[in-house]
Amino acid sequence: SVNPDLAIERQTASFSVEKLTAWLDGGAEHTRMRRAVVDAIECDPVFSRENQYFESQNERYEAAVRKAVHLQKKMQDMGWTVNGPEYKYIYRAVSGDIAFLLHRIFMRSISVLGSDKQVAKWIPLATQYQLIGSYAQTELGHGTYLQGLETTAVFDITTQEFILNTPKISAMKWWPGDMGRSATHSLVFGQLYIHGKCYGVHPFIVQIRSLQDHSLCPGIIAGDIGPKMNFEHTDNGYLMLQNVRIPRENMLNKFCEVQPDGTYVRQGSQQINYFTMTTVRVSIIADEVIIPLMKACTIAIRYSVVRRQSKLKPGEQEAKILDYQTQQEKLLPQLAAAYAFHFIYNYLQELFDKGYREIQTKNFSTLPEHSAFFFFFFKKNSSGFKAMITQNCTSAVEICLRACGGHGYSSLSGLPSLYTKILGSCIYEGENTILLLQTARFLIKCFMATSAGQPVPPSVTYLAAVKSRKCPAKNKLDFLSPDIYTEAYQHVAVRLISSTAAKLQDLMQSGVKKHDAWNQCTVQLAQAAKAHCHYITVKNFAETVEKLETKAGIQKIMKHLCDLFALHGIFSNAGAFLHDGYISGAQMDMVTASYLDLLPVIRKDAVPLVDAFDFTDKSLNSALGSYDGQVYQRLYEWAQKSPTNKQMSPAYEKYLKPLLHNMLSKL
Amino acid sequence: SVNPDLAIERQTASFSVEKLTAWLDGGAEHTRMRRAVVDAIECDPVFSRENQYFESQNERYEAAVRKAVHLQKKMQDMGWTVNGPEYKYIYRAVSGDIAFLLHRIFMRSISVLGSDKQVAKWIPLATQYQLIGSYAQTELGHGTYLQGLETTAVFDITTQEFILNTPKISAMKWWPGDMGRSATHSLVFGQLYIHGKCYGVHPFIVQIRSLQDHSLCPGIIAGDIGPKMNFEHTDNGYLMLQNVRIPRENMLNKFCEVQPDGTYVRQGSQQINYFTMTTVRVSIIADEVIIPLMKACTIAIRYSVVRRQSKLKPGEQEAKILDYQTQQEKLLPQLAAAYAFHFIYNYLQELFDKGYREIQTKNFSTLPEHSAFFFFFFKKNSSGFKAMITQNCTSAVEICLRACGGHGYSSLSGLPSLYTKILGSCIYEGENTILLLQTARFLIKCFMATSAGQPVPPSVTYLAAVKSRKCPAKNKLDFLSPDIYTEAYQHVAVRLISSTAAKLQDLMQSGVKKHDAWNQCTVQLAQAAKAHCHYITVKNFAETVEKLETKAGIQKIMKHLCDLFALHGIFSNAGAFLHDGYISGAQMDMVTASYLDLLPVIRKDAVPLVDAFDFTDKSLNSALGSYDGQVYQRLYEWAQKSPTNKQMSPAYEKYLKPLLHNMLSKL
Repeated sequence: SVNPDLAIERQTASFSVEKLTAWLDGGAEHTRMRRAVVDAIECDPVFSRENQYFESQNERYEAAVRKAVHLQKKMQDMGWTVNGPEYKYIYRAVSGDIAFLLHRIFMRSISVLGSDKQVAKWIPLATQYQLIGSYAQTELGHGTYLQGLETTAVFDITTQEFILNTPKISAMKWWPGDMGRSATHSLVFGQLYIHGKCYGVHPFIVQIRSLQDHSLCPGIIAGDIGPKMNFEHTDNGYLMLQNVRIPRENMLNKFCEVQPDGTYVRQGSQQINYFTMTTVRVSIIADEVIIPLMKACTIAIRYSVVRRQSKLKPGEQEAKILDYQTQQEKLLPQLAAAYAFHFIYNYLQELFDKGYREIQTKNFSTLPEHSAFFFFFFKKNSSGFKAMITQNCTSAVEICLRACGGHGYSSLSGLPSLYTKILGSCIYEGENTILLLQTARFLIKCFMATSAGQPVPPSVTYLAAVKSRKCPAKNKLDFLSPDIYTEAYQHVAVRLISSTAAKLQDLMQSGVKKHDAWNQCTVQLAQAAKAHCHYITVKNFAETVEKLETKAGIQKIMKHLCDLFALHGIFSNAGAFLHDGYISGAQMDMVTASYLDLLPVIRKDAVPLVDAFDFTDKSLNSALGSYDGQVYQRLYEWAQKSPTNKQMSPAYEKYLKPLLHNMLSKL
Repeated sequence: SVNPDLAIERQTASFSVEKLTAWLDGGAEHTRMRRAVVDAIECDPVFSRENQYFESQNERYEAAVRKAVHLQKKMQDMGWTVNGPEYKYIYRAVSGDIAFLLHRIFMRSISVLGSDKQVAKWIPLATQYQLIGSYAQTELGHGTYLQGLETTAVFDITTQEFILNTPKISAMKWWPGDMGRSATHSLVFGQLYIHGKCYGVHPFIVQIRSLQDHSLCPGIIAGDIGPKMNFEHTDNGYLMLQNVRIPRENMLNKFCEVQPDGTYVRQGSQQINYFTMTTVRVSIIADEVIIPLMKACTIAIRYSVVRRQSKLKPGEQEAKILDYQTQQEKLLPQLAAAYAFHFIYNYLQELFDKGYREIQTKNFSTLPEHSAFFFFFFKKNSSGFKAMITQNCTSAVEICLRACGGHGYSSLSGLPSLYTKILGSCIYEGENTILLLQTARFLIKCFMATSAGQPVPPSVTYLAAVKSRKCPAKNKLDFLSPDIYTEAYQHVAVRLISSTAAKLQDLMQSGVKKHDAWNQCTVQLAQAAKAHCHYITVKNFAETVEKLETKAGIQKIMKHLCDLFALHGIFSNAGAFLHDGYISGAQMDMVTASYLDLLPVIRKDAVPLVDAFDFTDKSLNSALGSYDGQVYQRLYEWAQKSPTNKQMSPAYEKYLKPLLHNMLSKL
């Protein structure tokens, strides 16, 4: 039975939850398909996550391999294929606790970077799991700065082989998933040397474990890197190479080839080598960042209408904690952010799909200039969004966790694992500060170009536009106008980009060397990049709401969320808007008033708004967040299953009993 | 051997590390004592934390009990006593991974709330560990709001007993440490009923496990609440009571007594019942919050001078990551905060010790008015500091973790466990938002009092002072004057408190009921309370530096840190200072310039500044943070000890081998 405090929240929804779900899914037919996939996975006991919070790292790994292997069978049984429309729902349905994800990256890299012959050889083997691949790029000493990788691959012309080595400890591969215990092969990135000359980083297919008995191959030292903040199910590994010889054909050579005589031939840009990373960077945003935030919001908001604590008025019943302004102010902006990031992800995905299709149909070297530029633009621009979204979603999940008090701190709430996992997204696939600075560099270039009257991509033409220098809002209701707040965000982005560009020029004109000047501006450059991404996100949210005009019920609540997202950003980053007086102190008070006024409005629909994310109880795996709201009962039932309650601890016989043994005689 | 990149950092310190350490410890004799305690603990293999990151919850619990029991012996051997000067260093030396902490709270509660007779009976038993106590206050349904506790204790006049019950699931005790598996007794807080009338929450001593065989007593259902985000070593427990009878003498009755005929007698304020919590709240700040931040800073800063990544200038060697402005801007403000919070803790501790001595020497009911007021003041005021410090330190540790990139995410860095543990401090001992609102209520009252010309405690007299309405700074160097920035903080605190008081009055005058009006101001009230605490912290830091005048070398670097702490706060919370034009946009640019200028100055002394915290390698337990800076070697060595490398996973035989078995025939 549903907890009555939660049930009542669902009776007063201002919109159809089912319609909102369908819209978020991109149509009711997608909702049906998603649910079918989720049902098929969740009714299969092999995919159960029931004991996940109780398992050791070894147990988690074993379960992840079991699920990955079983998934192959399941896909055959269900008629799902890797390129089929169901595929994207499968990973979500198993909630990420599955092995061989790097195997997919291994395959994708070969598809993109391998010659037709290499693709023809390796992809069928990998597809049928006749080998298990990994992707060995990161080293102990080098992450984001790929040019610094220290692994070497020396071409031996006499044997037509590459000799791979880990010349020092910092060159050891470290972190690659699926490599610590599972992989038989790995795509190893190392510095190519021919006749003593270094040609930079290239990818090599290296067998690391025997196909017979899984023992390590000669010259290979490999293992698991041990416990991490999360991802216990993944065997992130280390790999040391000692004079490992591989045939010349094992260097992926669609774009760069070493010919038998040692001649190095490059076709197209080196940039393409990093393309796989960019595609990964985009795809993780939905599954690893936005979905987890939606889950955290669902858990925290459902719990906050079941939990009653203290009284709003003396003599009354204790209040639902979501009725406190402070709780609303914690959770509802995070809910709005989940929607905002869902929409900006759609925007990025569309932009990317369009460009990717173009690149795939043509040889990179023959791409028209605008496509090459698109690729560059997309990479630089998406970097900043990856940083902004992961950073904001991570903070948001932490807020959700803390908003649930002590029970949020219990693993059984599901929130600790959501948090520790999403935190990783700020680090992997490009450290966020470095990504922001990539976008900042792009923005500064565009700003310079536009100042010089040169054309720039559509999303940054705003840098050239001359706008008013004062916000025209006259009362708090004016701040519910998307034109008003979008322009405020735009103004701040332009101001931060232009003032940092000016500082950069001033420094250089005063004699500071270019690189020092850049370093001295990086704190402000990162801020400018964030402001740009925030502006685009607000603008995209507002445009998404505007396009919704036929779906009245949904549009109204989405408009509220858009307003909340925008005003929360101004409220919590007030300095940027007040700095040059674009928004005055009096106007900031209006922003604050409008912002706080929105909270009780959205609060009424808070539960339907998270219900619309349509997570099953199994998918949330949370004692606090289930659809029925029976939180205390479920915490109690789940706790009893803990290994800590399965046995009398040896600590009793060993330590407690001897300690207490005198007690009886004295009491 | 020490990594040369780290060694060189120590050769250029602008001050004596040893002198700074001694000053932080409160004198060289304290440093000597602390080191002696740490040495004695760390050379004893029973206290080893070597395998901590690899252990299961069951193993962690067993180790914590083993250490707690061994510590008794150790203390006897060493001649340390609970009231001796070494005591406070012991907990730090074992780094918190020890059982029976709640046993201490159990004892402290009895000492404060028990009659002389009760103290005489229970304290010796507890002291000699002839029973193990716990402190059962929190329930599934109630945490910070104690009046809402649902456990009942009904006085049965016929048998002269209390009958304790858990009337519904939400009344189940949940979270108490040491209760899940260890405790034989618990101090249970429940609603006292006499002749059907409720007298509010009172503490009762209840035996929960047999002294003979540790089995649960009749009517007791208890166990462990399962996995948490951290504190795996603690058996946080649940407890359900079913008609459990205890003698009348088991209600702690120094201040409230039930006489044999059922007459209820109160002596003194009910407030005193919560006094134990306040004392706990203060003591955790150092051990659980500030020390962990100091550790995180040590790890992240040492790592940041060993880690080289990318180039500041083309053609040069890769740069130490601490030479990037963005990395400095992440870490150095956290370092300054660690110092700031250390000093504000000393301030609170002194304030508290003074008041506590007064209360202990007198019966609470006969305390002079000013002492009762002190107690009230201390509680309200310290609430806000607890919230501010825990919140800031938690964010700071997260920043340190993320600043170490992927390696920070490895458990072996020590940072994940520091983070997941410190996060708990935002929740336990009073949820932070509620604590901030307690302080805000106090501030509003003081503001009203001072507006009406009534006296207020010294630390809030500033609310009455009339100051200038514009910051007088004329150039960026002016912002290195403590007077300038302290006054800016003061101005913001006064503005936020007075404007929120005005909003509150406006709402009530417009007909909004008092409690609704309060709720509608809570977001701003919490901000006001933070601003107050931030102001006092800045002021206290500046005063601490000023008092240091004879120790020139130390004073200079402390002055830089104080400036950085203050300017970082203005820079990152600019809106509050710009709002009414107290600081202009042009002045904010000066703040930013001064702030960014300080980073490379402090960066030079960053390593000596963390060395001065004087943590041993064992105490840091971090592959990244050791004194010698051999980070890659240590990561590799430690990873090999992981249980994931101790065996071929069963996953191979079960799942991988069958998957790969076709491979040989096809390759």
